[in-house]
Amino acid sequence: MANMDIQPGPLLSQIEYPDDLRKLSREQLNLLCDELREYIIDMVSVYGGHFAANLGVIELTVALHYVFNTPYDQLVWDVGHQAYAHKILTGRRKVFHTNRRYGGISGFPRRSESIYDTFGVGHSSTSISAALGMAMAAKYAGDTERQHIAVIGDGAMTAGLAFEAMNHAGVSDTNLLIILNDNCMSIDPNVGALKEYLTDITISPTYNKLRQDIWKLLGKLPMSDISRELAAKLEAGLKGLLTRSSNLFEALGLRYFGPIDGHNVQKLVDTLTDLKQIPGPKLLHIITVKGKGYAPAEKDQTKWHAPGLFDKVNGEIQKKISPTPQPPKYQDVFGWTLLELAEQNDKIIGITPAMPSGSSLKYMMEKMPHRAFDVGICEQHAVTLSAGMATQGLKVYCTIYSSFMQRAYDQLIHDVAIQDLPVVFCLDRAGLVGEDGATHHGAYDLAYLRPIPNLIISAPMNEEEMRNLMYTAQLPHITHPFVIRYPRGEGVMPDWRRPFREVPIGKGRQIADGKELAILSIGHAGNFVTEARKMLLTEGIQPAHFDMRFLKPLDEALLHQVLQQFPVIVTVEDGSRIGGLGSAVAEFMALHGYHNQLRILGIPDRVVEHGKPAELHHECGYDAEGIAATVRNLLQEKMVVSHLQAHH
Amino acid sequence: MANMDIQPGPLLSQIEYPDDLRKLSREQLNLLCDELREYIIDMVSVYGGHFAANLGVIELTVALHYVFNTPYDQLVWDVGHQAYAHKILTGRRKVFHTNRRYGGISGFPRRSESIYDTFGVGHSSTSISAALGMAMAAKYAGDTERQHIAVIGDGAMTAGLAFEAMNHAGVSDTNLLIILNDNCMSIDPNVGALKEYLTDITISPTYNKLRQDIWKLLGKLPMSDISRELAAKLEAGLKGLLTRSSNLFEALGLRYFGPIDGHNVQKLVDTLTDLKQIPGPKLLHIITVKGKGYAPAEKDQTKWHAPGLFDKVNGEIQKKISPTPQPPKYQDVFGWTLLELAEQNDKIIGITPAMPSGSSLKYMMEKMPHRAFDVGICEQHAVTLSAGMATQGLKVYCTIYSSFMQRAYDQLIHDVAIQDLPVVFCLDRAGLVGEDGATHHGAYDLAYLRPIPNLIISAPMNEEEMRNLMYTAQLPHITHPFVIRYPRGEGVMPDWRRPFREVPIGKGRQIADGKELAILSIGHAGNFVTEARKMLLTEGIQPAHFDMRFLKPLDEALLHQVLQQFPVIVTVEDGSRIGGLGSAVAEFMALHGYHNQLRILGIPDRVVEHGKPAELHHECGYDAEGIAATVRNLLQEKMVVSHLQAHH
Repeated sequence: MANMDIQPGPLLSQIEYPDDLRKLSREQLNLLCDELREYIIDMVSVYGGHFAANLGVIELTVALHYVFNTPYDQLVWDVGHQAYAHKILTGRRKVFHTNRRYGGISGFPRRSESIYDTFGVGHSSTSISAALGMAMAAKYAGDTERQHIAVIGDGAMTAGLAFEAMNHAGVSDTNLLIILNDNCMSIDPNVGALKEYLTDITISPTYNKLRQDIWKLLGKLPMSDISRELAAKLEAGLKGLLTRSSNLFEALGLRYFGPIDGHNVQKLVDTLTDLKQIPGPKLLHIITVKGKGYAPAEKDQTKWHAPGLFDKVNGEIQKKISPTPQPPKYQDVFGWTLLELAEQNDKIIGITPAMPSGSSLKYMMEKMPHRAFDVGICEQHAVTLSAGMATQGLKVYCTIYSSFMQRAYDQLIHDVAIQDLPVVFCLDRAGLVGEDGATHHGAYDLAYLRPIPNLIISAPMNEEEMRNLMYTAQLPHITHPFVIRYPRGEGVMPDWRRPFREVPIGKGRQIADGKELAILSIGHAGNFVTEARKMLLTEGIQPAHFDMRFLKPLDEALLHQVLQQFPVIVTVEDGSRIGGLGSAVAEFMALHGYHNQLRILGIPDRVVEHGKPAELHHECGYDAEGIAATVRNLLQEKMVVSHLQAHH
Repeated sequence: MANMDIQPGPLLSQIEYPDDLRKLSREQLNLLCDELREYIIDMVSVYGGHFAANLGVIELTVALHYVFNTPYDQLVWDVGHQAYAHKILTGRRKVFHTNRRYGGISGFPRRSESIYDTFGVGHSSTSISAALGMAMAAKYAGDTERQHIAVIGDGAMTAGLAFEAMNHAGVSDTNLLIILNDNCMSIDPNVGALKEYLTDITISPTYNKLRQDIWKLLGKLPMSDISRELAAKLEAGLKGLLTRSSNLFEALGLRYFGPIDGHNVQKLVDTLTDLKQIPGPKLLHIITVKGKGYAPAEKDQTKWHAPGLFDKVNGEIQKKISPTPQPPKYQDVFGWTLLELAEQNDKIIGITPAMPSGSSLKYMMEKMPHRAFDVGICEQHAVTLSAGMATQGLKVYCTIYSSFMQRAYDQLIHDVAIQDLPVVFCLDRAGLVGEDGATHHGAYDLAYLRPIPNLIISAPMNEEEMRNLMYTAQLPHITHPFVIRYPRGEGVMPDWRRPFREVPIGKGRQIADGKELAILSIGHAGNFVTEARKMLLTEGIQPAHFDMRFLKPLDEALLHQVLQQFPVIVTVEDGSRIGGLGSAVAEFMALHGYHNQLRILGIPDRVVEHGKPAELHHECGYDAEGIAATVRNLLQEKMVVSHLQAHH
């Protein structure tokens, strides 16, 4: 992959590392910011990637590396999709065109990639804990000079992990600087009480001067006019109020500074220079605009979160144009189907933790704002809230990305499964997600859900199955928690809006019959099997194919039938090889004394990096080619064995 | 089990349900509280259970059921070990002597037990989310009368889930009342910035009157003396400050009331009656004393959290007295061994989320307060903080109860495992924990950890192995995350302080040789196998026994050897049958084409309730008797099969 001749500006082209940046004069920083912004716009328009968030922190990134002595001073970028300027300024400009590509650099900070990436991120709200850990390590080592900076968005601040970290940081006596990058956004607009509070701080012109005003006032009070007692009480009270308690963050023991304009690089440099001198945990509140400097992105920040390729000049986002109808995204099948079901069943409620667009719950939120809710980046709360609603007879569809569901695992077990409450979990982005890479793959859900009692666990092979599973989940006789997991991206059925049919719980289905060998799949990977089977048919190999549909309860009748009929079994799933469908089949075989040959295809037991989903499926050996190759090898082995046995 | 003739007082004896309570006069409530306190002291002294927390909420419980129309109004008790008074007043007094016993009532609220138990709890910090879910359901149903009350402690408030819920509740427009039961305690003393903040509110006499004082003051200001502009600014600023922002909870959109004395039942009734009339989300801050009314418990609240049986009169806690040295608790093996290792290796740091006593990290905290930290009920933060420290070369022993580790699953995957950071996780209370029951069993850890890349997963069979695993985990050549999981309660080695030996990673060991059949165990359940083997030897059956020690990496050499030598295999683990050791062996057999007969013993795929660990192990079929029975059956089957085969 060659860099398509996008040249950095004259200043930026001189900078490989922050050391070079720190040789610039203060005056040159504004120009550098302009060049950096231009470069990122150019690069993302041609190579894709996260966009609006990166434009929002250009000045901050320049100021941080200018003021602080990175990598000795340690910088943790929350979430990480805001780290492009950081990557470009820390040795990775010349490989930046490989961003998010197979074999290229990651779209997120990675420790293995650079010493400037102090902590691997991807999921939100980890930065304060991580930076505090580093700061406590420095304190333990007796290093009082080293600075530790966590840059965290107002959206990420709503997650409980960030609060837990502040609760500790506030009593920690470390050189920790939290920079609250307040742009009123997650990927979608931020929600919740904290966001309202930050807005209050920001828009009230009196608020920020209040402290000094009050002290001025106390100085002017004619003491004879009011009782001395009241004045004393008031002064004591105000002191407490205005130091620790006038501000949510100060209540948590963090000295609060700001808000300041996060796009004024000079002001940022001044402020950060001052803060560097102030020991102890502190928080700087900066106001930024997501998409800053690129008008279309400023106007529609959600659309421009990660827009794909676009024409930089006219702001038109490239669309795949096709003369024939194309299959929908699974998320849209979810979004439209839920709305359709909710129109028929007034018990249905929708919940998303901060992904109304990404999950397509937005369709229901727009039509039924009293029945569909974005609770912010709060997966734990989303699940326990859903459980609370379920106790009242509501049928909650709680949609969470598979890898984020990891964050609500205890709530799923403790609040839903143990109580056997019929919450429906729609796990989007299950399996390998592609360019977002290791942190975002929904690799483990089948494995971590399977041991939990009372769960129904399903995965549709296509859009029609998805709709039918969603339909089935809300039927009155379904009284258990019900998981439906489906992948990122498009399905396979252009004509997907078909009438609903109930899916019998725990029943698989035969997709194709065959002779030598049976392939058992779950979820969309079944389509890889269909493709593989087509290839194999041309070679005279005819494997049978069964779509299990349910990981739990397992279709035991079907398994008995298949295991009795086919000596060789291959399982295929877009999930970890350990613990999922293959593991369930192996357990079943052991329990019932079957001695069939079994091969488990899925995600191997190592960290899988980023790339196109097809590239990753191929790497992991369960795309159509991989499945076909496995089948060929198994039959080959079997022939050899038969041959040997015949000669005994 | 008969009630040992503990009689309730005359008022209490008239009350079966809250309806009866609500017939009492206001004046009678004080006496009822006294009787209830006496009754709980009597019952717990004789039957055991949680103690200090329950004494702390007697007046609150009486006031809540007196003022609110339960069960129509919905009451959620956070954590749930504070619900004894609630249980006694809601139809369960006559079965209260079965509390926490096998087949008896649960020590925590359970939906299946009573309509008054609106939400099953056990883990902390779920109550606000659950009650908010109920309140939103009422709002959706158009019911504006119904009240929803979450009672949450200041310790539970530090968990991120509580913050996430408040962030949503504050903008929710529901009839939600949060009662912050502030006693400065978790099980151990509460820690963190929030706790400091609450203390500030409570001890500052001026703080609570400040609002009215300021308004009084503004009325008295001679307006000619100060500029009109300043006065206007000040007034606007104070309004904002004092309504939304003067208080952490008001910053989050919750109307704040209190603090009031939580042991004054009359004041509580008055306040709750007032609050019932105020719509919208609100928080009442009450101050209570853990152990209130029983002097020894007030004095040492941690010790009296769940003291076991005691002499009510002299406050002496029963101790098992034994003439010979007894095996230590696993937690103490952890605590003392960590201190010993930390004395030799200055890279070692200890972290616990709110369990310094329960985990015995307290030994290191006392000796090395700069190297061992309680971070509060913040499992997520504990893990990511540990990861941050590990990036700086520290070797963090992060000790978390197995079932609470569920709450940091994403942090374990995202922040530790993907980055392959060598954090040591000491998972206490793994397996069935006994009387705490379903919510607290560490049933799933082996299954949910096994699919995660880079992890070393181990479980010691006894104290010596535990020490050696802890020793091995800190050796410089161990560069992966390292899990050591061990059970609640005592081990098996009175003489446990033996010299350290390195354990080879991924290597099992043979415990006993044998003939017909091999038993593979992991962790302390290996001792059940030893017992079972003794029984079987008397019957002429001699199974081999191997302690796998590591679930990951699996000892493949040992497995090959065992599978080649023994046609019948039994696996034994104190963990879910699905996904753990048995599953790993089944996968291994499938992968390598072994056709041995396999039986997996462990926790079955259903919710296991409370009881003594031995009772539960027996119920689940993997105590010594269960293992022996399984072995007998397998050999019987095999004989039948051989017999049939011989006759073919």
